[in-house]
Amino acid sequence: MLLPVQGMSGHPLDVLMAPRSIMVLGASPREGALGNTVVKNLIQSGYKGEIHPVHPTAPEVCGIAAFASVSAIPRPVECAVVCLSADKVLSALDEAATHGVGAAVIFASGFAETGAEGAARQHALSELAERTGMKICGPNCLGLANIHQSIPLYSAALPETLEKGDVAVLSHSGSGCIVLSSTGRFGISHLVSVGNAAVVDVDQYLDYLADDDATRVAALFIETIRNPEAFAAASLRMREAGKAVVVLKVGRSDMGAAATAAHTGSLAGAAAVYDDFFRRCGVVAVEDIDELVEAVELLRAMRRKPTGKGIAVLNVSGGEIALTCDVAQRIGLDLPELSQATKARLQEILPSFGHAANPLDVTGVAVFDMAMYGGAIEALASDPSVALVAVSQDCPSAIGKKQSQTYGAIADTVARLSPSLPRPVVFYSNVAGGIHPRIAEPLLAARVPVLQGARASLLAIKRFLNQNDAAFDDERPRIAADPKWIARFAMGEPLTEREAKQFLGDAGLPVTREALATSAIEARDMAAKIGFPVVLKVESVDLPHKSDVGGVRLDLRTTEAVEAAYEEIVRNVGAKAPRARIGGVLVQEMAGKGTEVIAGLTRQDPFGMAVVVGAGGVLVELIGDSALALAPISPERARDLVAGTKINKLLAGYRGAPAGDVAALAQLLSRLSDIAVAYGDVLEAVDLNPVHVGVQGSGVRILDALIIPRRGAAIQTGEQA
Amino acid sequence: MLLPVQGMSGHPLDVLMAPRSIMVLGASPREGALGNTVVKNLIQSGYKGEIHPVHPTAPEVCGIAAFASVSAIPRPVECAVVCLSADKVLSALDEAATHGVGAAVIFASGFAETGAEGAARQHALSELAERTGMKICGPNCLGLANIHQSIPLYSAALPETLEKGDVAVLSHSGSGCIVLSSTGRFGISHLVSVGNAAVVDVDQYLDYLADDDATRVAALFIETIRNPEAFAAASLRMREAGKAVVVLKVGRSDMGAAATAAHTGSLAGAAAVYDDFFRRCGVVAVEDIDELVEAVELLRAMRRKPTGKGIAVLNVSGGEIALTCDVAQRIGLDLPELSQATKARLQEILPSFGHAANPLDVTGVAVFDMAMYGGAIEALASDPSVALVAVSQDCPSAIGKKQSQTYGAIADTVARLSPSLPRPVVFYSNVAGGIHPRIAEPLLAARVPVLQGARASLLAIKRFLNQNDAAFDDERPRIAADPKWIARFAMGEPLTEREAKQFLGDAGLPVTREALATSAIEARDMAAKIGFPVVLKVESVDLPHKSDVGGVRLDLRTTEAVEAAYEEIVRNVGAKAPRARIGGVLVQEMAGKGTEVIAGLTRQDPFGMAVVVGAGGVLVELIGDSALALAPISPERARDLVAGTKINKLLAGYRGAPAGDVAALAQLLSRLSDIAVAYGDVLEAVDLNPVHVGVQGSGVRILDALIIPRRGAAIQTGEQA
Repeated sequence: MLLPVQGMSGHPLDVLMAPRSIMVLGASPREGALGNTVVKNLIQSGYKGEIHPVHPTAPEVCGIAAFASVSAIPRPVECAVVCLSADKVLSALDEAATHGVGAAVIFASGFAETGAEGAARQHALSELAERTGMKICGPNCLGLANIHQSIPLYSAALPETLEKGDVAVLSHSGSGCIVLSSTGRFGISHLVSVGNAAVVDVDQYLDYLADDDATRVAALFIETIRNPEAFAAASLRMREAGKAVVVLKVGRSDMGAAATAAHTGSLAGAAAVYDDFFRRCGVVAVEDIDELVEAVELLRAMRRKPTGKGIAVLNVSGGEIALTCDVAQRIGLDLPELSQATKARLQEILPSFGHAANPLDVTGVAVFDMAMYGGAIEALASDPSVALVAVSQDCPSAIGKKQSQTYGAIADTVARLSPSLPRPVVFYSNVAGGIHPRIAEPLLAARVPVLQGARASLLAIKRFLNQNDAAFDDERPRIAADPKWIARFAMGEPLTEREAKQFLGDAGLPVTREALATSAIEARDMAAKIGFPVVLKVESVDLPHKSDVGGVRLDLRTTEAVEAAYEEIVRNVGAKAPRARIGGVLVQEMAGKGTEVIAGLTRQDPFGMAVVVGAGGVLVELIGDSALALAPISPERARDLVAGTKINKLLAGYRGAPAGDVAALAQLLSRLSDIAVAYGDVLEAVDLNPVHVGVQGSGVRILDALIIPRRGAAIQTGEQA
Repeated sequence: MLLPVQGMSGHPLDVLMAPRSIMVLGASPREGALGNTVVKNLIQSGYKGEIHPVHPTAPEVCGIAAFASVSAIPRPVECAVVCLSADKVLSALDEAATHGVGAAVIFASGFAETGAEGAARQHALSELAERTGMKICGPNCLGLANIHQSIPLYSAALPETLEKGDVAVLSHSGSGCIVLSSTGRFGISHLVSVGNAAVVDVDQYLDYLADDDATRVAALFIETIRNPEAFAAASLRMREAGKAVVVLKVGRSDMGAAATAAHTGSLAGAAAVYDDFFRRCGVVAVEDIDELVEAVELLRAMRRKPTGKGIAVLNVSGGEIALTCDVAQRIGLDLPELSQATKARLQEILPSFGHAANPLDVTGVAVFDMAMYGGAIEALASDPSVALVAVSQDCPSAIGKKQSQTYGAIADTVARLSPSLPRPVVFYSNVAGGIHPRIAEPLLAARVPVLQGARASLLAIKRFLNQNDAAFDDERPRIAADPKWIARFAMGEPLTEREAKQFLGDAGLPVTREALATSAIEARDMAAKIGFPVVLKVESVDLPHKSDVGGVRLDLRTTEAVEAAYEEIVRNVGAKAPRARIGGVLVQEMAGKGTEVIAGLTRQDPFGMAVVVGAGGVLVELIGDSALALAPISPERARDLVAGTKINKLLAGYRGAPAGDVAALAQLLSRLSDIAVAYGDVLEAVDLNPVHVGVQGSGVRILDALIIPRRGAAIQTGEQA
């Protein structure tokens, strides 16, 4: 008889995450064996469903009647916990599947992590799951534990102190599960050691958690994202359910950029791709375990949505206020200037020697004057540019009794004021390692988040406020793919500069006016039509470096100069590259004063294509000054992207130069990202190098372009043709 | 009767830090009053010296006979603890001085921190100290507590859990004292709230601690350094005594660079000055309290001196190894490649699927196989490029019993091996917030440092290894100041380019060959002598921007071209700047192919002058790519400085260019720093902009130079003359 559906969400993973009956394959009567521990843990946890140990000979395991084989179990069973070595897993699961088992937990290592044989085994496992629809956790993992409903399908020991709570842990690494269930900072709803994720990966668990009433925050320790669309969709469902996701993605430093012939592809580190992906998903990305813990604690306790990004910090010490400034600057935290009204109000509240500023030193006087202290908080929380008030006070566990009473009064004040403040308030201690309970307790009771460590706390707050940036820009195709160009890309060969510009022009991007001349007379007439000054460039698929063979002439201001330059180019190229195939000479408008930037599209699988933009010349070459965002992007997002580079400073009127047309550049980048959406399947890379940014109002022009079709796609399309 | 001199170091601060008799000015019979608490604390701490409460009327305070006035005390007293408000402090101390009191602790605020009146009061206090030789702690502080000898002259409550230990805390901020005495991570020898430091500042306390047997590490939370020489000398004494200094200098972010007309002065943030100063002092500089705590704990427990800087990290999880790589990259930590021999040894030790690398994943198998685990540590510690082995294992306090046994076995193994390993070993948990005692205890007993939090731990280790960089470069003047130039600087006016180059040439720096011509014929002859090509530049004190008036002609390759250019320049300047005073036209050698960098000297009081170097052009302008070091610097240190900028990449043969003469640039910078030493008193700033760096072996040339004499010094010298 199956359990009632109490606490079940109707989710496909119910059979794995909250099974109503379990068989233990490899169950063992031997104390200390994994197949014994699992059964014992289930019994001790008070699991209410049926447990079916399977053992070839033993009559019982831990006092429960055992079955000699899967087929001997008289009733259907939802989930199999497999305590067998890798070589025995597949046949056992085959039999279980025949018996109607819908889910399995596989602890064994010896799969894809161990070489070719293991990889084949994992492949077979995936096929089995595909064939049978079985939901499998692992292999090569610690299993999972539904803490909320006390269902441990877990091979490691759970800490005795582990409490039920609203944080779900998903971790590719078993160590991640162990540490995040042992911080003592928050209770757990589900603990999932995802392992090799042969069948079920983080995205599916996350989707389950969106429906799980017990979970409020998902804490992720992950090594990769295999299915970005599914992850994004699950994140969105989490958001819609009012839940938060905090993710620590490890292995960022050694990621190579996607290999590509184009220049922009090598600019932005692939870590930037994850950063942008997580931003879009609205999940909070952190960089180490301490940051993860503080972010989880903040999001778990926080009950209010912030509006804006400004943080006001308050402390009782000038020295610590100086520390706050230092840390804020290092982590790029916005501590906005207070309004005149707030300052005036604070001057009234503070002692005469006080200084009304953000961060605010309320002075040591306020430590013993809760009206003053509370008044200062209220003033800060009322400032129009403040989105959140952070109360900073060192409160290590080891502070003395008298000090804990003093700071306890501060905690009481914050707790009392918190519900009525116009902005959310967060409390943090500048030092990690525990908070004295006299301080923590009243705050937590009032649902004021209590964080530890200046850096990790302020980072958590910053990221919480930045969550508002979450956005998947409108992904409806804004331009349609043109079959003519699709066919051209299918040829596989890179486009000539002129072809590339025709394509870009067709797609609505601003390219230089230009035309191909095959005689000096033609060149002259074209120049007159385009308008002087012009540039002449030889066109040849055989000459990627036109200047080296004397194939380029700049700044031609008269018809005579154009005619002469044409003849000169033909002469030069004829002499220096006699065998090059010459298509003609390109007559091109010459850009006026302005700044050159480089922009492009780069493939960042599995995330698709990304837009890259960087300052031109030495800045991008030598210091990699560039920014990256997954396509598509809006013009607004493109502006943010540009602001993340030195381009902004260059275009803002650097060294007295007139300001550049940032708006036009943003439009170009957004449009470029539309190309990524429309032609993403058949494009490998696009380099716009350089893009000329004129003075404000005069627009931008793509001066040169390289477009590389996608190789695989080209072949595929070729076969279809 | 005075106490025996037990525990006294014979240091001038003994009377303050370990007084053998105390008078309490403002002692009070009223419970809760500061003058009551101080007396009570002294009694309760078991202070063995005499306590003399002073109160105008009360016969006794806390059971000790009180004196109506200072003069009524029949015996000499070493130290006065002043529990009076600011307005009463001076007269009371005057009287105490007359009575032979040699030291005082002043808690009261109302001094320099509160405006003009307070500043005057503090000035009077300093004068009193100068007059009487009195050693004063404060004012505006919590006082100090000699924990080691149980002498609390401290206004705040000490934590009940505070233990005697070998860490001394010096803090300008009272909060710094409170938090660092309450971390529960280390015991304390002395706790000093330095306050306004009207008389005794951090450097003098540090000097005391160098002699103090109870102290092994000084933990500093400071807001400023007023006397760099004294601080450096005290640091050196600490080092010589085998002790360590860890310093958190707050208020770095808002420090403006010294105001100067020269360009290089605005390049490097003044925080870089502190960084270089601390490096030279051999003290460990940290950036927040958590980093301070881990560094203190490391240096306190560490008993071995490292040789080299390479760190090997070991963990039992692939996910955490990936995290280690990420954190190491972010903090710029060197994780050296292991030798082939080490790799071969590890391959023998590890399971077949293991991967011998640094950081090392010893695999989950090793968790249950201490021979394997220990063997891996031994292999890493024997690698020639490894200076220290860091054993990384998550061990939060809340881990379960079984897990703590497993990890406890790891701790036992590390503790057992530690003494015999060829390299020191450090244990750290990737998460802050406490370490389970089953793991911490055996390690601490074996003097293996136990750190918390991946980032703070690895930063502490990195800084510990970098301590070896401590060096005050030889400060004997390597060039002598020339009275002729001293006199010229005394005139106060900036030098012309030609004068500046003459000065630099005299000091042995490589300047362009050049001469001043006053006719076209002269120019032609000079050019022939200098060698073609040459540059012609108008010389005029009235024309800082020579190009703007057509006053510069480049790349002149013949005598005819030189003559024509001379005439052209005279014509141009005559037309565009008819009133400018013209000294002539400078004929200058023209540098060949190479890279331009910018270098200079900038005044960074109170630290003296610093050398700045940066890549030329947009790199230094737009991204502030420069490095700074206090003068003097050796050529070796100059190379390190250059390596801290993009210049290295530019000079290493960037984009196929020939490698530049880095050695010559380093020589130039070192020589420039000699100028800072010889002429430091009379120089405000030197700009060498640009310095031309030729291809390797061809040297460097200063193409243009600006020298600004020091204003105050000029006046002073003028008066003397």
